[in-house]
Amino acid sequence: MGSPIPSKKEQITDPTVGRLVTYRRLLMRLVDEGVPVVSSKEIGEMLRLKSSQVRKDLSYLGEFGKRGVGYDVSLLLQDLAGILAPFEVRRIGLVGIGRLGEALLNHRSFLSENYEVTAVFDSNPAKVGRVYAGKKCYDIADMPRVIAEKDISVIILTVPASAAQRVLDAAVSTGRIAGALNFSAAVLTAPPEVEVRDVDIFVELEKLLFRLKATEQKKNARSVSAAID
Amino acid sequence: MGSPIPSKKEQITDPTVGRLVTYRRLLMRLVDEGVPVVSSKEIGEMLRLKSSQVRKDLSYLGEFGKRGVGYDVSLLLQDLAGILAPFEVRRIGLVGIGRLGEALLNHRSFLSENYEVTAVFDSNPAKVGRVYAGKKCYDIADMPRVIAEKDISVIILTVPASAAQRVLDAAVSTGRIAGALNFSAAVLTAPPEVEVRDVDIFVELEKLLFRLKATEQKKNARSVSAAID
Repeated sequence: MGSPIPSKKEQITDPTVGRLVTYRRLLMRLVDEGVPVVSSKEIGEMLRLKSSQVRKDLSYLGEFGKRGVGYDVSLLLQDLAGILAPFEVRRIGLVGIGRLGEALLNHRSFLSENYEVTAVFDSNPAKVGRVYAGKKCYDIADMPRVIAEKDISVIILTVPASAAQRVLDAAVSTGRIAGALNFSAAVLTAPPEVEVRDVDIFVELEKLLFRLKATEQKKNARSVSAAID
Repeated sequence: MGSPIPSKKEQITDPTVGRLVTYRRLLMRLVDEGVPVVSSKEIGEMLRLKSSQVRKDLSYLGEFGKRGVGYDVSLLLQDLAGILAPFEVRRIGLVGIGRLGEALLNHRSFLSENYEVTAVFDSNPAKVGRVYAGKKCYDIADMPRVIAEKDISVIILTVPASAAQRVLDAAVSTGRIAGALNFSAAVLTAPPEVEVRDVDIFVELEKLLFRLKATEQKKNARSVSAAID
């Protein structure tokens, strides 16, 4: 399914990958709306990015657009989707069926052709055996067996911080886990061959508040200097 | 409450702010555990960052640590918290009480002294008037009035994509909104004085999958060349 990543682009940075994901989302919308062509300037305006940044990112894919015309929306989407898609559908286990786990499972964006939540896990006997978003919930104690049986290679941790390292260790002990996405506040350790990523859903809120503070401070500095003048 | 941002650091980039938030979280844990001193190397190992990066980020705060000793954990946390804290507690409105909205409201990290969710909104009559995580739910139709009454300056959008622009417009029309955090997949437009941030909770999953694909591709390339040799 996925196309190879263009050679020498394997080192493409995380922020760039993040923007490629955003371009893909925008292009899917444009396809839905029947827009045939889009320019880097239009993409930039819609996503609050510089058009030079957009052109640079898309040139990674060997896409240059036509000067004064723009990019063919369908072709660009196809290329982007190919680069971002794994070589095989990734089978994912989600561990921890709390509010966040359920919100993730039921989120529209989670219905991707790139990955598939194959099993969910919890330690609460009231949850084990129930079905969440179409997925059977297994006991965390059975996780190593289920990971092997269902060929799961990525786990998403939506467990409390106090349980996260223990769950990660149990999953990693199977030798089958390539990556883990940690939504808990725990600081986790794993062998170097396992790629662990932390997601702090409030970090964007903190960034926003910091930016507003910086703007406020500049504004205050300006009004002080205006008062002195 | 918040300290001023050191002069000329107002332009501090978003990824740096993101790391400062992560350092603060780690330092809070270290304080809890009674750790008095930490080195940039130890911070780097725990957060999977280069120690040179850690030293550079912390030097922004005028913190240099003692060579061979490290940083005083409590002092460093105090400085970080001060930089990140707004000048006044931000009053936030959360719009859209679905699974994600509820997960956010009930998330431990959401109990911050830097901000306070002052009101929640939904358009579903079954939800209006009910209390969520201690906050009364108002009708979205009353949002402009409630924003003014409660001095709300930031809104969090956990509404469906199809409703997000309409909700943002209504909030912005009050002239009181400085920032908006958009959890929907909608591409939003707002006047330049309103800082809009998009949060895609699955972008980190996509980044993780891309990184795994890149690793896989490199490994395959190596085994092909080993087979040829």
